[in-house]
Parts: sequence; C-alpha cells; structure tokens
Amino acid sequence: MQLMEERILKDGVVRAGNVLKVDGFLNHQMDIDLFNEMGKEFFRLFGDEDVTKIVTIEASGIGIACIAAQYFHVPVVFAKKSESKNLDGDIYTSSVASFTHNKVYDIRISKKYLNENDRILLIDDFLAKGNALLGLLDICQQAGATVVGAGIAIEKGFQEGGQLLRKRGLRVESLAIVEAMDASGHIEFRPQ
Amino acid sequence: MQLMEERILKDGVVRAGNVLKVDGFLNHQMDIDLFNEMGKEFFRLFGDEDVTKIVTIEASGIGIACIAAQYFHVPVVFAKKSESKNLDGDIYTSSVASFTHNKVYDIRISKKYLNENDRILLIDDFLAKGNALLGLLDICQQAGATVVGAGIAIEKGFQEGGQLLRKRGLRVESLAIVEAMDASGHIEFRPQ
Repeated sequence: MQLMEERILKDGVVRAGNVLKVDGFLNHQMDIDLFNEMGKEFFRLFGDEDVTKIVTIEASGIGIACIAAQYFHVPVVFAKKSESKNLDGDIYTSSVASFTHNKVYDIRISKKYLNENDRILLIDDFLAKGNALLGLLDICQQAGATVVGAGIAIEKGFQEGGQLLRKRGLRVESLAIVEAMDASGHIEFRPQ
Repeated sequence: MQLMEERILKDGVVRAGNVLKVDGFLNHQMDIDLFNEMGKEFFRLFGDEDVTKIVTIEASGIGIACIAAQYFHVPVVFAKKSESKNLDGDIYTSSVASFTHNKVYDIRISKKYLNENDRILLIDDFLAKGNALLGLLDICQQAGATVVGAGIAIEKGFQEGGQLLRKRGLRVESLAIVEAMDASGHIEFRPQ
C-alpha cells in the first residue's frame, strides 16, 4: 500500500535495536483518515472471505480493527493481556513473548465470543517475530474457528514472523513490508 | 442515550462487587454499529467545541475514541499504561488507581502529541471512581491544553467519579448513567 510506505518514510523514525517508531500516526497518536484507507485496503484483500469477526490484541491493534470492521460490518473482539474483573468464566488463553515490552504474558479471550462457525480476520499494527499472531491463531484454533488471514499495518520483513506464519499456511497481508532499515534513517520496502 | 440504556438492559450483567459486565458489546467484543451511534452522539454534544484531538486510555477506550474521531475529523492519542520501547523521550505521566485491575499504574503520553493549542475531548468506556479521567486531566493540564469535556459510554452514578469531576468544572457527558443496580439484574438509570 503506497500510502503506508510513503507515511513511514515521512514520519517513521528508526531507533537502535530494530525499533521503528511510528507513534505519530499508528500506535500512540492515530491518524484516523489513514486508518480508513487501511480498512478499505483490508476489505479489498479479504472482502470475499465471509469474515464474521475481526480479532485483535490490545492495545495498538484495537483502533485499526474497529475502523476496518466498518467495511466488513462485523464485530471486533480484542484479546486482553491482563487479569481483569471484567473477564471471568470460561476463557481461551495463550502465552505470548513481547519484543516491545521484554516479557511473556498471557492473552485471553472469553469463550462466549469465538466459536467454530466463525471466520476470523486477525488484525494488528506490527508483525515482527510473530508471537502475538501465533497466540491469536492458537486461541482461534482452540475455538475451532477458521482464520481466513491476517491484515497487518507494518511487517518487519527482516524478522522471522512473516515467513513463519506464511509457512504455516496463514495468508498474511501486510500493507508495508520493511525489508531493511538503519539508524541513518534509510528504510527499504519489499516490492509487493 | 436511549440506545445505550436499552443495550445495557439487554446484554449487561451485574456481578458482585459493583461490576457491570458489558463485554458483549463494549469492552471485549465491540459492536461497531453501536460505536458509530455513540460517536454521532458525542459529536452532537461536543461538535461545536472546536476539538483538535481526542484523548483516551488503553485499552477499552481506544475503539470508541477512534470511531468517534471520524465525526470530529481529528486524531486520537491514547495514554499508555506500560513501559514500552515505542515511548521514549519527553513524556507526560500521571498515576492512576484501577478499580478493575486492583493496582496503581502510571499512564504516559508523549509530549509531542499534546500542546497548549489543543482543545481536548476525553473519551472512555467507563466512569466509576474517576481515577482514569483524573489522570488524563492531569496530563492535559501539564501540557497546557484545554479540556472541553469528557464523553463516557457508561457512568456508574452511584460511585463518586462523576460528581468529583463535575465539581471540578469538567463537562462530563455520559451516554448512560447507572443510578443503582443489584445482583438480581435490576438496573436503574438516572433520567437525563
């Protein structure tokens, strides 16, 4: 998606440790017009898949998922990362290692909101090592739901997540795939 | 907002400890059509306030804020609850005690995304003791921004947050105010 690549070049900042900061438009301050263009593109890619639900993970995926859901006319379910009084009863759970936060945490979705008739589109802001998506996939499989694919805003193509998930047969559509980047600010995209 | 009250009566569940579970449509599974009606109502209430930015807090406020932002044509900034590699440099921070999670945590917003020219609408899913909103207010005041008000999906009118914030001069507009509820399922709303 040319718009996403252009925006990354304009406002993205490369930091040491393979960190690509896009907090000006994607995951701290959020550009809702851009999110709408992303939602339209996800619908162009997955609109014929009879999606019944979009599943994402708190926190940065939620805004993208909600805007995209307007094109699919389906509800969004977000996996929770912490224990909460609002999440009781039967839950699906999976363990996820976070690159951004340097820790392992459990993600949880109530069994009420996923079932074997669901056709799930996963949405997230970043794909790097793929741990968050693997956790969501695991939960969807526990529910017996069909995962039609994953829509990602930015994939770090130089990390293993995308390859790992595609090898498992998951259809992964990333709006921009960063093939290489360095602290001088050079960012190179994989042609799509 | 009649639609919100009706939905709470239809799908809300009262649990021991003053917990109102609305995870079927508001803060775990999210009904995006309902969110759009909420966004329109927030715009009806605050549309003449020259809002420049919507500010919310992760995670449950993000979806509501993003959908509402489409009516205001402004970006959304969400306060982060955890340390993150994606949040460095100068930040505003405030401490918040959470009723839902039984702990105190810091919330953070990068100084880049709030300034003294901003006219902020705060958005959140719940108002109970008011701690999250007080934290967001504190951060907006640190930035010198003007807070035009707070748009809340559900206020627990029998807890002190709403009164506390209104006494401080904040315009608080809650789409539904629960005046009383009990474990038998009875829910009573404050007439608005």
